[in-house]
Amino acid sequence: MENQLQYQEGRTEISQMGKVALIARLTDGLDVKGDDCAVSGNTLVTTQTMVEGVDFDMMYTPLKHLGYKALAIAISNIAAMNGTPRQALVSIAVSNRYSVEALDELYAGLRLCCERYDVHLVGGETSTSRAGMVLTVTVMGDVEDSKITYRRGAAHNDLICCSGDLGSAYAGLLVLEREKVTYQANPNFQPDLDGYDYVLERFLKPEPRMDIVKKLAKAGVVPTAMTDVSRGLADSLLHLCHASGCGCEVYEERLPIDYQTSRVCSEMSKNMLPVSCALNGGGDYELLFTVNQKDYEKVKEMEGIHIIGYISEQGMPPVMVTPQNTTITLRAQAFQGVDE
Amino acid sequence: MENQLQYQEGRTEISQMGKVALIARLTDGLDVKGDDCAVSGNTLVTTQTMVEGVDFDMMYTPLKHLGYKALAIAISNIAAMNGTPRQALVSIAVSNRYSVEALDELYAGLRLCCERYDVHLVGGETSTSRAGMVLTVTVMGDVEDSKITYRRGAAHNDLICCSGDLGSAYAGLLVLEREKVTYQANPNFQPDLDGYDYVLERFLKPEPRMDIVKKLAKAGVVPTAMTDVSRGLADSLLHLCHASGCGCEVYEERLPIDYQTSRVCSEMSKNMLPVSCALNGGGDYELLFTVNQKDYEKVKEMEGIHIIGYISEQGMPPVMVTPQNTTITLRAQAFQGVDE
Repeated sequence: MENQLQYQEGRTEISQMGKVALIARLTDGLDVKGDDCAVSGNTLVTTQTMVEGVDFDMMYTPLKHLGYKALAIAISNIAAMNGTPRQALVSIAVSNRYSVEALDELYAGLRLCCERYDVHLVGGETSTSRAGMVLTVTVMGDVEDSKITYRRGAAHNDLICCSGDLGSAYAGLLVLEREKVTYQANPNFQPDLDGYDYVLERFLKPEPRMDIVKKLAKAGVVPTAMTDVSRGLADSLLHLCHASGCGCEVYEERLPIDYQTSRVCSEMSKNMLPVSCALNGGGDYELLFTVNQKDYEKVKEMEGIHIIGYISEQGMPPVMVTPQNTTITLRAQAFQGVDE
Repeated sequence: MENQLQYQEGRTEISQMGKVALIARLTDGLDVKGDDCAVSGNTLVTTQTMVEGVDFDMMYTPLKHLGYKALAIAISNIAAMNGTPRQALVSIAVSNRYSVEALDELYAGLRLCCERYDVHLVGGETSTSRAGMVLTVTVMGDVEDSKITYRRGAAHNDLICCSGDLGSAYAGLLVLEREKVTYQANPNFQPDLDGYDYVLERFLKPEPRMDIVKKLAKAGVVPTAMTDVSRGLADSLLHLCHASGCGCEVYEERLPIDYQTSRVCSEMSKNMLPVSCALNGGGDYELLFTVNQKDYEKVKEMEGIHIIGYISEQGMPPVMVTPQNTTITLRAQAFQGVDE
């Protein structure tokens, strides 16, 4: 009856193996399709579990935002495969620390997100947790066969595009963490969040980019590969390049970074660069995709889409080119180890 | 920035409200169909989240069994609506306390359950947890329109049936908890689990009753209402009666209880009655269903199915009749509060 986790011979650490290799090992021999979602016929399914203290901090996460965000993240996975979300299923485990009114708030956020993205909430379940809240959201969607996008379809010379801006959600998290620490040191402290509204909203209430999915469809553009940017641009690029068996070259000066993100970085530390937030911050839920060169004209004109580089040939590393023309090989902690 | 959970005016405790009323409140105005699963057209979807330290204890839960059990519970929800499971999606959050080999074990259990129930594992995802393991399994299935069973279809005079035996999973848990406490007091203690194999297997590796779903289909019987027994018979009966707007009468001497369950109860305490394990124990994952009287002959002959009582008319309470002909009104903590 010894704890089976402690005395194990021939133990391999997950961090030694890396996430991509781990999933490949665990699902070896299984017919697992899909990446951001599971794919079965034309149906896309994705599950998002959020654990209190791990995926969110009750200290600064309004419950309405939490409900909205959990569903938004799941919808983003559907968007990442060029699909349309249809139904959602919610399961909440809570301790008695939570009141009925607290759950009303959570559901208000879920409902708002359902309305905005035309998703039908088809199931709700609650159960008891002895410690904190565990929120699980499952979203089902669909996609036409000819339009489904995986991470693996990028080819040499394809253009790399991303939507919105990068690093702002992480900047929002930095602001909230800073205010939390100050508040903990002095509970009379009134946090001042004025002037950070954009980055805070990016962190607390991300929007899945269904508008981009629709714009691409309207323009008749099917990306050759797509994923969402949930754990930083570097991680998403590495996943996309690894799955497609190619390298990439992105240009630092092309990365879309909001001025509020830059301002937060400069306030935090002179060593914190906005580009680091964009590459490794996470939480943006923008779309990263590649298109064939023939679609250049169409994509160039689209509002909210930035062409940040191109796919290089097989065997080349994924790199970022700085304004000084230095080439930096991209690495992502999340990609190597199990993700954050 | 105060913790939003602590200083709330007009706070309503979840325990005051009860689970059924809570879910009704949270999903008010939404078109939520289904109960054990969410229903969308002919598709059934259910999500099962298991949190270490809440839903399982790593001290005595072999990881292979955990993988098997998580999937089995989700399949049981599909069975409870008379459906057939088709695809599963697995998401695991783990801390670095877990090795790659530990996850191999977990997946071995998931694969075994997939094979046994002909379920296709279509997606696997891993992420990091700072504390313990969170395992989320989503199962999709389907059901013909004419065969779908909800909790709400039971009518006056319908027969109440249940499969297998009740209370044995809880008896298995009692044995494991007893050995754990003894081991913690004296780490040199060798737990003796001989003679408890049946109840231990019932707790650690429950089997969803797809065999019963198939038998009913083969015999041309569509239950008028159905649910699974996940939190004790009393809870399931109360849910079924509440949804159907009726009462019930079940007979104590008709409840199927294994001799090992009775033996464990007598070992634990002279005050612990096997019928209490059956009513309130939980973890059995048997099917509880009602059939029209016209199906009596068909159901009576089926192996593994027990007729335990009948549905009484609207306004009558759900009761159990003892061998001494005393009538006891059924209550279930799980039904009143948020479930365990």
